[in-house]
Amino acid sequence: MSEICILSRSDIDGLLNLAEVTEAVERSYVQKSTGKGSLWPMVFNEFEPGRADLDIKSGDLAEEGIFGFKLVSWFGDNPRRGLPELFGTVMVFDINSGKPRALLDGGAMTHLRTGAAGAIGAKYLARPDSKNLLMVGTGGLAPFEIAAVLSVFPDMENVWISNPRDPERALDRLEGISGVVRSLLAKSGIKNHGARISVAKDLKEAVGESDVIVTATPSTRPVILAEWIAPGTHLSCMGSDMSGKQEIDSSVFRKAKVVVDDVEQCLSVGECEIPTKEGLFSREGIYCEIGEIIDGRVPGRTDRDEITVFDSTGIALQDLACASLALSKAERENLGVTVEL
Amino acid sequence: MSEICILSRSDIDGLLNLAEVTEAVERSYVQKSTGKGSLWPMVFNEFEPGRADLDIKSGDLAEEGIFGFKLVSWFGDNPRRGLPELFGTVMVFDINSGKPRALLDGGAMTHLRTGAAGAIGAKYLARPDSKNLLMVGTGGLAPFEIAAVLSVFPDMENVWISNPRDPERALDRLEGISGVVRSLLAKSGIKNHGARISVAKDLKEAVGESDVIVTATPSTRPVILAEWIAPGTHLSCMGSDMSGKQEIDSSVFRKAKVVVDDVEQCLSVGECEIPTKEGLFSREGIYCEIGEIIDGRVPGRTDRDEITVFDSTGIALQDLACASLALSKAERENLGVTVEL
Repeated sequence: MSEICILSRSDIDGLLNLAEVTEAVERSYVQKSTGKGSLWPMVFNEFEPGRADLDIKSGDLAEEGIFGFKLVSWFGDNPRRGLPELFGTVMVFDINSGKPRALLDGGAMTHLRTGAAGAIGAKYLARPDSKNLLMVGTGGLAPFEIAAVLSVFPDMENVWISNPRDPERALDRLEGISGVVRSLLAKSGIKNHGARISVAKDLKEAVGESDVIVTATPSTRPVILAEWIAPGTHLSCMGSDMSGKQEIDSSVFRKAKVVVDDVEQCLSVGECEIPTKEGLFSREGIYCEIGEIIDGRVPGRTDRDEITVFDSTGIALQDLACASLALSKAERENLGVTVEL
Repeated sequence: MSEICILSRSDIDGLLNLAEVTEAVERSYVQKSTGKGSLWPMVFNEFEPGRADLDIKSGDLAEEGIFGFKLVSWFGDNPRRGLPELFGTVMVFDINSGKPRALLDGGAMTHLRTGAAGAIGAKYLARPDSKNLLMVGTGGLAPFEIAAVLSVFPDMENVWISNPRDPERALDRLEGISGVVRSLLAKSGIKNHGARISVAKDLKEAVGESDVIVTATPSTRPVILAEWIAPGTHLSCMGSDMSGKQEIDSSVFRKAKVVVDDVEQCLSVGECEIPTKEGLFSREGIYCEIGEIIDGRVPGRTDRDEITVFDSTGIALQDLACASLALSKAERENLGVTVEL
């Protein structure tokens, strides 16, 4: 017999903001790199290849005193039946007793923690005086990535958005994305960020002029070629999270400083996977995990002209850190439902 | 946004009985053997070896239209702090949309489905005219194993209980176990089962006189020797569910007909593990999975004198079948709490 707390999507929407989530995700990366957080083997099942799958990512975070998992199920045909494509469910347990503590909707959390991850890559690897941000991909994640980067780069001037497969779509999405970015920034206490958001006229040209590029597409072939990228550019690659996905040209990996969220996961399902399978990259080519840079043990960017890549596959510890943050805020604000289990 | 149903331990205690659970578990074994149910890789983590661990067992059951998991955390020091040693949590999702459907306490369910498993092994492998049952192990599972076997063997006459490491303990537990057995049988509609429950005076002797033996101990060395076992005996081994555990003499595997719940799991963490590592047994020695016998595709016992072993490691499909049963009964009886996620 135990009581658990339930936090719904709307509870979490109200409780979390990008600035706090970014701090929490940074702490979780550091715990991973210092052995205070660990990842357990991922469970992955395809119900129908390319149409429906599921994963369970789990692990523990000692400083937060929790372990738990996020289960994400993706059913591509759902929207036709009026259902969301994706369901995310997070559960948190007490690390000292194994007692279930909470069940949380993982949907809103996933967007926030993935936005935070892209921004953390840029914060520790991009040039501090970066002025131009290119967002490649105009799906649900785009505003979260943009707002998170803007919140750590107060002097960013331009944001270009681009949809590499369907350029027209970027124009349709511009207003919607800009609105969500404004509201996300406002929730983090940033009222008037000076950056101007517009559609990239030409992807190749925009890549060449950008200091920071964030990719968040479902692509399985490179949408950014190596020769387009100017010296000194940083790329946060968020899209590759299962085998076969790829967003940037394999040959970028020959010359870039490559930082990962988790070595094993990035080699098996991340942006590192294809270049490694093609023999252009290897485990030894990975510079370090991002937590080691945040922690100060390994320097980040060491040269103004180097190209840096952050391969973010998404790890359970990001979700657990968000869940822990949401739970402590919910307790203070007396939100959520308590149920006997 | 979705609504999920929460069923607490006391809800489930009230909803499920052994007779129905046994039917549900049989159906889940059949689905496994016909490919309508599948098991996904198990997640296992040891927080402190021998003192605290956790596993997540997951899979899907097509006929029930669900997928899901059971997470079990075991913290051996909990009782000293007034907490249960074990927490079990089950979640169920819709197999056609990935939508979370329910969160259920997995504690009561685990006892019921493990009792059912032991009885199913006996039902399909023991001699139908079995008269004597020996229960080895006097922990929480014992009354569930006994009641489940009695409910499928109405003519069983004697039940002996034995605690191989601490024989005195069996006497202390006799009354408690008998009471729970009576109440479990009553819940399944069995009022006056003629079997007499008593303490085995001598384990070796009891083994020799038993038709059905159920073992449910945490043992890591054999508690039953091969030479004690009479021809025609059936053994349902429930205790071995992680690497290193063993309840019966490895050399039993040389001569017995060995049936498993899941080939891979039994070879890696079940009663089959040690004999296989010792070179006395191998994958090829496994007769079949229990679902194939229930389904009628493979005969069970074919000789009055053969020794049969059912190695039950416990699979997610048993829990999912129980959860599905509990949910449909809860719906009819309007039990449980519905919460927005």
